[in-house]
Amino acid sequence: MNAYKERINKLCSWMQSEKIDAVVIEDYETRRSKNLQYLSHMESDSLLVVFADASTVLVPWDILHAEKSAVADRIIPYNDFERSYIKTIKGVCSEKLSGGKIELASSTPHVLFNETAAELDRFELVCRSNGLAEIMLDFRAVKDQAELDIYRRAGKMTDRLIDAIEDGFRSGSIKTETDAAMLIETESRRLGAEGSSFETLAAGPGRSWGIHCIPAYSAGPIGGTKPDGSGGLSIIDCGLKLEGYATDITMTICGGQLTDKQQKMTELVAEAHRIGVEAASQPGITIRSVAAAVDDFFASHGWTMPHSLGHGIGLDVHEAPTLKNHELYEKPLLPGVVFTIEPGLYDAEAGGVRLENDYIMTESGAEAITSSRILMLP
Amino acid sequence: MNAYKERINKLCSWMQSEKIDAVVIEDYETRRSKNLQYLSHMESDSLLVVFADASTVLVPWDILHAEKSAVADRIIPYNDFERSYIKTIKGVCSEKLSGGKIELASSTPHVLFNETAAELDRFELVCRSNGLAEIMLDFRAVKDQAELDIYRRAGKMTDRLIDAIEDGFRSGSIKTETDAAMLIETESRRLGAEGSSFETLAAGPGRSWGIHCIPAYSAGPIGGTKPDGSGGLSIIDCGLKLEGYATDITMTICGGQLTDKQQKMTELVAEAHRIGVEAASQPGITIRSVAAAVDDFFASHGWTMPHSLGHGIGLDVHEAPTLKNHELYEKPLLPGVVFTIEPGLYDAEAGGVRLENDYIMTESGAEAITSSRILMLP
Repeated sequence: MNAYKERINKLCSWMQSEKIDAVVIEDYETRRSKNLQYLSHMESDSLLVVFADASTVLVPWDILHAEKSAVADRIIPYNDFERSYIKTIKGVCSEKLSGGKIELASSTPHVLFNETAAELDRFELVCRSNGLAEIMLDFRAVKDQAELDIYRRAGKMTDRLIDAIEDGFRSGSIKTETDAAMLIETESRRLGAEGSSFETLAAGPGRSWGIHCIPAYSAGPIGGTKPDGSGGLSIIDCGLKLEGYATDITMTICGGQLTDKQQKMTELVAEAHRIGVEAASQPGITIRSVAAAVDDFFASHGWTMPHSLGHGIGLDVHEAPTLKNHELYEKPLLPGVVFTIEPGLYDAEAGGVRLENDYIMTESGAEAITSSRILMLP
Repeated sequence: MNAYKERINKLCSWMQSEKIDAVVIEDYETRRSKNLQYLSHMESDSLLVVFADASTVLVPWDILHAEKSAVADRIIPYNDFERSYIKTIKGVCSEKLSGGKIELASSTPHVLFNETAAELDRFELVCRSNGLAEIMLDFRAVKDQAELDIYRRAGKMTDRLIDAIEDGFRSGSIKTETDAAMLIETESRRLGAEGSSFETLAAGPGRSWGIHCIPAYSAGPIGGTKPDGSGGLSIIDCGLKLEGYATDITMTICGGQLTDKQQKMTELVAEAHRIGVEAASQPGITIRSVAAAVDDFFASHGWTMPHSLGHGIGLDVHEAPTLKNHELYEKPLLPGVVFTIEPGLYDAEAGGVRLENDYIMTESGAEAITSSRILMLP
């Protein structure tokens, strides 16, 4: 459990430089944060206080789970504080400190912040836009060796999952969106993963025009033509979770004789994907440049992609950095970042095409860890 | 779509009484709120501004989806505001109002509230603990006739799902946690629902001691004895979603010869469930009294339940009210509320037992809409 100790120490160095005496990390139903798991190995439903001397107190809802799973110096049941956020912070911090600065998550609601500050009047409460949340995003964005090892294994597993999906379409065992989703859930577990990393998005030709289809999958058909027999575009966006870490890939399945527009869309997306990977393969490139290369390519063909090019992956499926053509991302794509490249085009009539794979940024450029593809079915 | 108009009108009456000129309803990845769907029929990933004159503007991420699904007077793509929360509110509100009070969700982060207030200096921004969020919880807690009709149908479907799960255990087709979860996903869709209402929690005898098992389901065994052949307690907590509305039930499956402790736990939970339903069947009873009846019963046998007795259900699986023995809940269980009763006991060695069903509160007491049970397998 050295990784956890190292992460706490790194956070405490930052706290000392910022003159912060304690930080509060929280994961409850209305405010989820994988910072909890990153720092304590406890997956969810707890509050973690980290003091500047690197001591930690975990306050879990499920005490049995915490005792089996968590890495923390002390564990106190949430029930001891009447399951109250404010009572927990007050109780844990007052026992150790007589005053000082406590930083809360920047997601802390305005109302709760004011109530907490009023109740903890011996302390100075901090909640800011360039503080704890951002430093945690930065820490988590660059994976350590243990995390990269997990990702290389997860990538291989994901490739076997992709093969199984392709087999399912070619053999005819995947006929409905539900068939696809169930195959992904069972196969990912059979391969040794914890399961899918998010609810599989499986959209047949009738509804692949949505960036994220709703519901995520239905009993409707996938992989074939449209009801009128014309070409159909289907999308599967899925991933698996290994030791808490998510992969995230998208396949497009082309069924029947595509229209010229559909054919053009698949070619543009495949080429955009290649352009994105090529851009990311230049060491030191900025995030913005990678995204801009793809946006410019689509624009030169009269198309616009309605979402970002990609995003970091980790304990969350969406982590920093976002691969977006925006001045905020005028910074290098750092070695150790694990990220997706996922260009897509959508049309209300033709449907959607998206191709997504996962990469590790290394000193020498992007290393592909998955190999998803656009399938052409007869 | 009259239901949506009625809901907007109800909200506007409240806004007028509070002298609020506009409210901002938001559902994006880091801050989810089914208030969006409740008021606009748009499931997710949008911002909705409701003005006091009952006009509405929806700003969706996925414009194609909104055009097919949403109920709103105007729809403007989020991209038109560079996908910025602050630019969206400023743009939409400034076009209609030259000043006045705008209320933001009480979940709005402290930092974002301050940034928004600074940018929208012509307006008075409101973010409070007894305002928009609470009135929306109150509105949503008491279902209208259309919602109750959905729930009576969803309850019948859920009962067929429960029968299918029981059949799966008795026939031997459910051997692993994954088998159970897959049956629930496929069967709920086959029955005509959108799918499961949340990720099925399926915990075999080795890990039913957790209130919410992590991962939600694994490739491990369920329903039988412990590896050493002694009695096993397994838990399945699941539900289905019909027209957006969630059901939520829990079954416990007892495999093999239970120990005296396990036997006692199942008897106590079954009796606690009966006591809870009986308490809720008295018209006008307070929420607290229902929860207290069960807590007192467990205490009289030397046990403590580590969670609440139940909760409202609706577009969210967890809605108001919480059935908790606390002074906050010293108020009547109102007719029209749809809620769960789910007593449970947990032991690190013996495992867990929970029994959960769904009820509609009526003028004459609780009406059961599901009939989950504790299964005894040979």
